[in-house]
Amino acid sequence: MGNAGQIFPATEHQARTRALQNQMAEHGQDALLLTQAADIFYVSGFLTRFWESPARPWFVVVPAAGYPVAVIPSIGAEPFARTWLTDIRTWDAPDPLDDGISLLAATLRDLTPQNATIGLPMGLETHLRMPLADHARLTSAIAPRRWADATAAVQRVREIKSDAEVAKIRATCAIADRAFAQVPQLASVGKPLDAIFRDFQIALLREGADWVSYTAGGAGPRGYSDVISPANANPLTKGDILMLDTGAVKDGYYCDFDRNFAISQADDVAHRAYDALFAATDAALTALKPGMLACDAQRIMADHLRRAGMTPLGGRLGHGLGLTLTEWPSFTTRDQTPLREGMVLTLEPGIETTAGRIMVHEENIVLRASGCELLSTRAPASLPVIQ
Amino acid sequence: MGNAGQIFPATEHQARTRALQNQMAEHGQDALLLTQAADIFYVSGFLTRFWESPARPWFVVVPAAGYPVAVIPSIGAEPFARTWLTDIRTWDAPDPLDDGISLLAATLRDLTPQNATIGLPMGLETHLRMPLADHARLTSAIAPRRWADATAAVQRVREIKSDAEVAKIRATCAIADRAFAQVPQLASVGKPLDAIFRDFQIALLREGADWVSYTAGGAGPRGYSDVISPANANPLTKGDILMLDTGAVKDGYYCDFDRNFAISQADDVAHRAYDALFAATDAALTALKPGMLACDAQRIMADHLRRAGMTPLGGRLGHGLGLTLTEWPSFTTRDQTPLREGMVLTLEPGIETTAGRIMVHEENIVLRASGCELLSTRAPASLPVIQ
Repeated sequence: MGNAGQIFPATEHQARTRALQNQMAEHGQDALLLTQAADIFYVSGFLTRFWESPARPWFVVVPAAGYPVAVIPSIGAEPFARTWLTDIRTWDAPDPLDDGISLLAATLRDLTPQNATIGLPMGLETHLRMPLADHARLTSAIAPRRWADATAAVQRVREIKSDAEVAKIRATCAIADRAFAQVPQLASVGKPLDAIFRDFQIALLREGADWVSYTAGGAGPRGYSDVISPANANPLTKGDILMLDTGAVKDGYYCDFDRNFAISQADDVAHRAYDALFAATDAALTALKPGMLACDAQRIMADHLRRAGMTPLGGRLGHGLGLTLTEWPSFTTRDQTPLREGMVLTLEPGIETTAGRIMVHEENIVLRASGCELLSTRAPASLPVIQ
Repeated sequence: MGNAGQIFPATEHQARTRALQNQMAEHGQDALLLTQAADIFYVSGFLTRFWESPARPWFVVVPAAGYPVAVIPSIGAEPFARTWLTDIRTWDAPDPLDDGISLLAATLRDLTPQNATIGLPMGLETHLRMPLADHARLTSAIAPRRWADATAAVQRVREIKSDAEVAKIRATCAIADRAFAQVPQLASVGKPLDAIFRDFQIALLREGADWVSYTAGGAGPRGYSDVISPANANPLTKGDILMLDTGAVKDGYYCDFDRNFAISQADDVAHRAYDALFAATDAALTALKPGMLACDAQRIMADHLRRAGMTPLGGRLGHGLGLTLTEWPSFTTRDQTPLREGMVLTLEPGIETTAGRIMVHEENIVLRASGCELLSTRAPASLPVIQ
């Protein structure tokens, strides 16, 4: 990565801020309060793994016009000073008596009129990254200003990736592509799954990941029992289907896709399952266009799987991707989010192969006016067998 | 690690649950709602990196007596079934119309009387890991039941580590010890800092980390400009002080300590700074006893640094450690938390060496009746110089 705080030029962050301010104006919001890592990185360029520490809240306030204001723990003053922001207000955190709340309240009062509506993401896929009791104190301290849900305002902006963002996600996908290409060398009969996970993470780092925020997977005959568990110490056995899934990170941007491998051999059930997942992904790759809804993507893949005689998994069959491992929308039957040009998405069909066993398949794409453009290198058309 | 969900025997989780229930009784809370990864792992044993995905909330409810109840996305049903919990209620998440809220509300109504007080962590170092708007819906759906702050109830239990937990943290510290021992081989004049970060993460994985949730550091003459930035691509130069800090993870438990190295040479300012940090840490290692307060630890180290003619950093000079990279208490002037036998803590004095440059030093300990017991291998007594 480049120097911290300089992953993008200031113009990129300025354009993002203007887009947020346009949304805020549309929604009648006089300021926007951001508390989550991805939102703060998006606006300011401030990237740190220090979010792993739950001790301190961090705040960025986007006013109706002009530059965002950072209200942050003093430990972040130096790296924030390297971002494009100029108004950086700090306190010594953590402070059990007043952990930035009076400073944040004063900032919100500075930046907005008394009758202001202040946007705060409160909806699906958002969290308030500050103590709930402090949020209540803040609500009193800024009265009569009121909160409004800013989820839509933020999501409609962040979901459209700029060319610079697509390039970042493509670069992260390429790192994972190169690491997945090494799996035939690092997986073999008798090797414990946790050792494979370690070697796979090492391969991702060697290929250029700044860090590896997510690895999951499983192994078993005709598939695995779930897709979110860390590795166990069970050795691979002949006939296992090994799945590895990763959210590696480069310059703050994630990939999220998986690959399947048969260990030494696979039976017809596994081969047919793989073929059906591959074809369902192809169907979505061909059909998805801007203007469709998230639920359409689910339907295309689920219908294709059912026509092939398979049982699609409940839950979602893909989702947004970018500054976090997963972003909205979700390819479920209920998600009506319109698919738009510039969205980066995962196509992730899954099926139950036999009782208690599943298989999944995943690719990353950017949606163009003409349809899907792959960011991951397309998986092999038939189940690869590691000899 | 062992099989997911089986890092600890059920008896460990039962003892934790009983301890929480005792605290709940003391605070007059009829149930406890947990939403954060560390709290849920602590009670249930459910460990996953899937928390990286912000899409879905996860809930565990601890009733006044008896087993905790999981209210979780169906994608987690299989791994949760491998934990010691038996009452696992699921919904297909993410659901934009009702993302588990009616199921959670029904569960809370099942488990508590109408006039119940339900504990929810709301204080320093806690977040509500669910959408704020859903919390408001939940509040209405469980009325007339009311929320109460459960921060103290949870923290007084979690801050005392069992022998099994101390063993886990000690094992993670040993992994980092072995990786730090390799830094003289992987750092040299001309090597970019980001390449060193990658190699250091690889060393941590090779030495047994399941994953590496945190690396930070810096390099420069007489220290670094901050301690939370990811690596830049600047090559090391002769006379730089290189600092690496890590929160590696094994079986869900973190270490958090750093090490300093001089590249080829260091001037007297850097050597004296290192000596002062080492001595301040020794002072705390000797003096800390159960019954002192968190602010006493800060005072011991800060006073020692001042007597050595140094300028201690503001903010905290150490903190709790365990299921997250940092836990309460914080060694600040304002934190009155009593230090108790069984706490795992970091001692982390820091100083400004010259304008815009700092140096920090960190060890991990468990507090025994007799004082500090090191979990990290003590750093070298004088600044190591990599030739």
